[in-house]
Amino acid sequence: MSERSPEALLAEALGGSRGALARLLTFVESGGRQQLATAELAYAAPAPYVVGLTGPPGGGKSTLTDRLIAATLRRGQVGDETFAQVGVLCVDPSSPYSGGAILGDRIRMQDHATDDRVYIRSMATRGHLGGLSLAVPDAIRVLGAAGFPFLFVETVGVGQMEVEIASAADTTVVVTVPGWGDSMQASKAGLLEVADLFVINKADRPGVKETRRDLEQMLSLGPDRPWRPMIVETCATNDEGTEELFAAIDAHRRYLDDEPLAESRRQRTRAALDRVVGEVLRARVAELARGRAYDEQIDALLACKTDPYRAAETLLLES
Amino acid sequence: MSERSPEALLAEALGGSRGALARLLTFVESGGRQQLATAELAYAAPAPYVVGLTGPPGGGKSTLTDRLIAATLRRGQVGDETFAQVGVLCVDPSSPYSGGAILGDRIRMQDHATDDRVYIRSMATRGHLGGLSLAVPDAIRVLGAAGFPFLFVETVGVGQMEVEIASAADTTVVVTVPGWGDSMQASKAGLLEVADLFVINKADRPGVKETRRDLEQMLSLGPDRPWRPMIVETCATNDEGTEELFAAIDAHRRYLDDEPLAESRRQRTRAALDRVVGEVLRARVAELARGRAYDEQIDALLACKTDPYRAAETLLLES
Repeated sequence: MSERSPEALLAEALGGSRGALARLLTFVESGGRQQLATAELAYAAPAPYVVGLTGPPGGGKSTLTDRLIAATLRRGQVGDETFAQVGVLCVDPSSPYSGGAILGDRIRMQDHATDDRVYIRSMATRGHLGGLSLAVPDAIRVLGAAGFPFLFVETVGVGQMEVEIASAADTTVVVTVPGWGDSMQASKAGLLEVADLFVINKADRPGVKETRRDLEQMLSLGPDRPWRPMIVETCATNDEGTEELFAAIDAHRRYLDDEPLAESRRQRTRAALDRVVGEVLRARVAELARGRAYDEQIDALLACKTDPYRAAETLLLES
Repeated sequence: MSERSPEALLAEALGGSRGALARLLTFVESGGRQQLATAELAYAAPAPYVVGLTGPPGGGKSTLTDRLIAATLRRGQVGDETFAQVGVLCVDPSSPYSGGAILGDRIRMQDHATDDRVYIRSMATRGHLGGLSLAVPDAIRVLGAAGFPFLFVETVGVGQMEVEIASAADTTVVVTVPGWGDSMQASKAGLLEVADLFVINKADRPGVKETRRDLEQMLSLGPDRPWRPMIVETCATNDEGTEELFAAIDAHRRYLDDEPLAESRRQRTRAALDRVVGEVLRARVAELARGRAYDEQIDALLACKTDPYRAAETLLLES
């Protein structure tokens, strides 16, 4: 049985085949020739609108995303765009599992796992961590090309990678809980910079007022930005505040509809291209380093017959 | 007045001119054309033997280095090699000062600042941090070419960078203090891997026995290595244990004189070449990213006329 081409799979995915869609997403996760062919197709379609959710573990992001999926389907519209289905990427750089079967379908977001208007996919690191920061943007475009104009991307964990992935979204939601101001000193700065919206989830717990005050104070100390991040209180387990959060997302989407979206997208496109160029070069160096010419330059260095700068130039000219 | 060439400066440095030596070290710190010409000269001479000292701040590394300088001059020999002078590089990635005037000559290692058998140079970050991991190896080779076959390289701080720099030494000494086992959990693993010798400095304080036991336990849990790191107790402020430490360094040097030195040097030469190749490529990407062709590819991406992988290939072919 011959492997279907990315073109054939994309046509099937657009026709509603979740299996074909999963196959395409596996292509962009695993690299190789099919990855490049899939990327070529995926980037030929307009980018979808992406809401990123990030924040410390234990903040209830999954439940909140679950509520947002329901709200999205109820409304069927964000900004001026309508849609009948919603895609979700769950990104966990610390997990070796991917493909959606383990985290995505079974444990998380159970309310929607069997809803055919919802497509949930888990993405996890495959071997090397750097891969996800390329694979997630590609997966976003695959979903966009496959008929999902609106996506949620939820990241698990609060490392550099997670923040980087979430902040590649059009609207970045940072999910906090009461008392967050005290505990997350180390990563606060990074999250503050990328947030378009703050959520104080689990707002039935004490300390909401203090956390809001802390966030407002930190925002007032930061640089002036044309969009001032909104702060929304939610209690996802009781579905409280979901409509307010959705309204805030909608407000940010409408704000982006004007000029800023173009500039913001341009900046993010530049950052994405930087990453791919860096990755292509890293791959080239890794290949170089395995070759005989590299060993010869090391011999020359040990024999004091060259210096590392001339050795590098020689290797890069030959490659 | 025309600038003297690196060749002329090296001849003066070999004749004893500290000013000429300082100029050469500034060349390798600051990049540019003179850096390449200086590196070419420096790497044409054999590499000096380097003892690296690293470890958490407050461990008394500077005082210990001071004592080791005195011991080195008293002995005048390490392994089978004799020498009449000793060079010291103090590396502080967190400090904006360099050139030796501020840290090196005035505050640190005051016993030897006026001894003409000793040359002390401070190196600090100039603008970007990545620079030091290239500049320090180059400075080591400059000192080697200028008549210093034996060097100490002391790093201040315990970051990734400091460990990387110290572990590029032939003999890496990790300086700890009693109670270290408790406080430095986070960076212990990295330091354990690079250590050829452990020093428990300030050994007049309580907790020496426990710290030694902790270190021995950690070593016994680690991978089997042909050289088992020695543990030496010192009290640098009273010059106690210095001879024992020097003897341990000497023992490691003699161990390296056999086969392992060749393999260890080869590995470190490979790592150094990897870094330079990576740096040359990064510089190339940065230059690319400033160009008009890069903006054109971003335009094409925004118009869905290419994908990041094809864009990267196009840019790299043209560069």
